[in-house]
Amino acid sequence: MRYLIRFSYDGSNFKGYQRQDGYRTVQEELEIAATKVNNLKEVKIVAVSRTDRGVHALDQVAHLDMDVSITPYKLKRALNSNISDEIHINSVKEVSDDYFSRYHVLSKEYHYYINMGEFNPIMRNYVYQHCYPLNVSKMRDAIQFFKGEHDFRAFVTENRVKDNCVRCIYDVSIEEKNNILDIKFVGNGFLRYQVRNMVGALIKVGTGKIEPFVVKEILDSKVRGKNGATAKPCGLYLVKTKLGDEE
Amino acid sequence: MRYLIRFSYDGSNFKGYQRQDGYRTVQEELEIAATKVNNLKEVKIVAVSRTDRGVHALDQVAHLDMDVSITPYKLKRALNSNISDEIHINSVKEVSDDYFSRYHVLSKEYHYYINMGEFNPIMRNYVYQHCYPLNVSKMRDAIQFFKGEHDFRAFVTENRVKDNCVRCIYDVSIEEKNNILDIKFVGNGFLRYQVRNMVGALIKVGTGKIEPFVVKEILDSKVRGKNGATAKPCGLYLVKTKLGDEE
Repeated sequence: MRYLIRFSYDGSNFKGYQRQDGYRTVQEELEIAATKVNNLKEVKIVAVSRTDRGVHALDQVAHLDMDVSITPYKLKRALNSNISDEIHINSVKEVSDDYFSRYHVLSKEYHYYINMGEFNPIMRNYVYQHCYPLNVSKMRDAIQFFKGEHDFRAFVTENRVKDNCVRCIYDVSIEEKNNILDIKFVGNGFLRYQVRNMVGALIKVGTGKIEPFVVKEILDSKVRGKNGATAKPCGLYLVKTKLGDEE
Repeated sequence: MRYLIRFSYDGSNFKGYQRQDGYRTVQEELEIAATKVNNLKEVKIVAVSRTDRGVHALDQVAHLDMDVSITPYKLKRALNSNISDEIHINSVKEVSDDYFSRYHVLSKEYHYYINMGEFNPIMRNYVYQHCYPLNVSKMRDAIQFFKGEHDFRAFVTENRVKDNCVRCIYDVSIEEKNNILDIKFVGNGFLRYQVRNMVGALIKVGTGKIEPFVVKEILDSKVRGKNGATAKPCGLYLVKTKLGDEE
């Protein structure tokens, strides 16, 4: 039986989502738990998004196949009782055996949080601690250039540029509350480091190092420049994964 | 020269604020840092509140004496660069040499956060994960009994009952947002475990184990009953310390 799971995790102490030999990853911890529940018959978890070291998720999606007969409710409980409290399965549902979760993604929503106020020790792993004011108005001007379908090659780490870097961003916005910026990106998909590299450029705009129009020039250049900045992972969250067959 | 400092900390990995031999405490870490800045002449930090293991602070207050001549601005920077990122000095100001911070406290504000929704791995050390609905309306009824001046002996751990357990609570309230309860207590001072024991009773009300009026009975009994519950420390924050000579 195939199951679709939605789960959240604190990425602080993981070397990212995806399995890597010798490192603690979310995927490995989930697969070990699922394999236990599956009477030690190996289970593979196929996730919709890869998040890097230190990046958090509130709504990651994956599918997995179980040989044992188990209800979604019991599978949720069994997985949660076999993983650390840094991961939590939010929901489990049965899907058809040929359901491949990645093909059903309508959109992904990422948020990046920046603290412009005093350093906050409680939020140190959960909000990027910039600790200086940023010109939010200019950042709002710059963020508009990301909207729509573009070749985002300029915001991907150079040695990882794939053949196809075209993605569509449906929505971008910046909210400000209590000196914390909440930068939202909704799109059909994001390349590795893309959000953090876009935020890196936005922070440069916010500090006055570059003008908003330069962000468009970088985007249009389709080249990852040597001065490209990558925002720290701790401020980044995969907040929502929308599937085509839901809601 | 005497300085008044305001600071915040993530209590998760400390055995509380107060120095205890053989344990990592906030006070010790601050005193080591201040002593370094003071050319290794020992500095004692005298704080206004004691917080227990796992309890967080956004606005703890203390005073300390330095022999070296240093501006408040530089002292703030020097302390922050000598402590871990689990503590942060928010402000430093000079005060007179006979200023004793504890005598100037007008009020302290504590908040306790309870998650009634799905377990949240990201907030696991920062919000108490109850993960079930609570009857907030009944909790709001019960919380009223705490308002005003009372002998809070029934909410202090038995073997720590002091001669004087009379404290005044100026304000209590419960806000609810996205399934998270924010319980606020403002008072002239709080006894050890008092807030967590009051919240423990409120959770019993919220789960229907006791009716709101029982909270008044417990308070009036002036006895810490055997069934007294103590809420977990991770949900508790010292949010604001108001001094009489400020604002």
